[in-house]
Amino acid sequence: MASLSARGIGGIPEVRPGDDLAALIAPGLDGPAPQGAQVIAIAHTAVSKAESAVVALDDVTPSERARELAADLAASAGEDRDPRVVQVVLDESSEVMRAERGVLICRTRHGFVCANAGVDVSNASAADTVVLLPRDPDASARRIRARLRELMGDSGGDRPAPAVLISDTFGRAWRHGQTDVAVGLAGMQPLDDWRGRTDASGLTLRATWLAVADAAAAAADLARMKDSREPVVVIDGLERYVTHDDGPGAAALLRSPDEDLFR
Amino acid sequence: MASLSARGIGGIPEVRPGDDLAALIAPGLDGPAPQGAQVIAIAHTAVSKAESAVVALDDVTPSERARELAADLAASAGEDRDPRVVQVVLDESSEVMRAERGVLICRTRHGFVCANAGVDVSNASAADTVVLLPRDPDASARRIRARLRELMGDSGGDRPAPAVLISDTFGRAWRHGQTDVAVGLAGMQPLDDWRGRTDASGLTLRATWLAVADAAAAAADLARMKDSREPVVVIDGLERYVTHDDGPGAAALLRSPDEDLFR
Repeated sequence: MASLSARGIGGIPEVRPGDDLAALIAPGLDGPAPQGAQVIAIAHTAVSKAESAVVALDDVTPSERARELAADLAASAGEDRDPRVVQVVLDESSEVMRAERGVLICRTRHGFVCANAGVDVSNASAADTVVLLPRDPDASARRIRARLRELMGDSGGDRPAPAVLISDTFGRAWRHGQTDVAVGLAGMQPLDDWRGRTDASGLTLRATWLAVADAAAAAADLARMKDSREPVVVIDGLERYVTHDDGPGAAALLRSPDEDLFR
Repeated sequence: MASLSARGIGGIPEVRPGDDLAALIAPGLDGPAPQGAQVIAIAHTAVSKAESAVVALDDVTPSERARELAADLAASAGEDRDPRVVQVVLDESSEVMRAERGVLICRTRHGFVCANAGVDVSNASAADTVVLLPRDPDASARRIRARLRELMGDSGGDRPAPAVLISDTFGRAWRHGQTDVAVGLAGMQPLDDWRGRTDASGLTLRATWLAVADAAAAAADLARMKDSREPVVVIDGLERYVTHDDGPGAAALLRSPDEDLFR
């Protein structure tokens, strides 16, 4: 029987530019040596703040297009939209897919499809700043993992270092509400491919190709209180997906636009 | 600090039509009285089989449209498609949204958007049968919850009975792989609405409207081995979402087509 557990790590202070995030996380993990094969799920805002992926709105001059979009969004939402925030969203986007009811649905430069290109107004530490997605979230995850390995000592080579999963909260097509998904990943298999394998009855599990990193991100978010500072959650029970090498990252979860059937 | 744990319940035999699913589950829960505020996540195939939501393909006569679609799908997938299965998918659908690369993306009669209208070939107990989604998954969840309450004794009125969540594995727009989502729900809040509430810094969590039932379904699936018979997973740590009344069910997670921004 499998089992899963996830717990928030308390005591992490508000993250500031240049902070060594791994050094803030390590004391909250169990013991001096890494628990082999744990997954450390980190809300992207903590990573972005440490990496200074933050924009002060005073430094932003909105373009004509940003002003027009802000006016349209304000009209459809029935409340103001700051054209400077819209400008940041445009800067982060490779494509604006929809602009309706106060929301921009964008494809980000990384290839994620999400509201406002992942630009986060609510989780900024200071008024008049916005938090972006990390510039390269898979690289961020690899860096944090390497640093955790360094800080916590080598586990001896037989056990992989903890995997690092960076999450953001995305809306979905067809369904209300949002769930956390993986935007960055190091040391964990993002997908578990059962296509062609057989189940207990010997019948083929034809369509099963599990997005285990996204499921782990969603599980982690359930172990995090939204109103508290708990950006980091430790997950046990996913040993079977944790790898010695850093693997393909969360980029492997992106479906290219031309092969998407679910739009 | 919040925490979450999920474990599969072993020892559940292959479910057959007419089986009392709650009676198969109850012995695997902790102790004679219900652990208050647990969430019991059940893979829909177990519920569908107990409810005889199963079709023997010998009883299906494919229509002309099903034959044509099967031929098109076979050509695009490079492997055969049984026109009788396609007929069952059409019978379960209110709308076929796409037919490409061997897959039908459908809106089911319930309003779910998923591949093959939730018709499951791989998890059938016998060859030449397919498993449907339960006819009314929220009603199924309410029935199982009521029966669990009956079997396990009243907890005294202060603690709610365990919530029941029925899940299926759905693909998503924009992202590879599948995750479990809630298709039926009783006794659990499907959504946690933080819109307008403030975070620890006093700033508004503007866009946060968490699909906690879907996150719980995804977490449960991580505690279930796909190749074993573990349709039932018990989740602890979601007490804050478990309610005395059965609530709005998973139907509350469905976004109506005209308000969907993410297509």
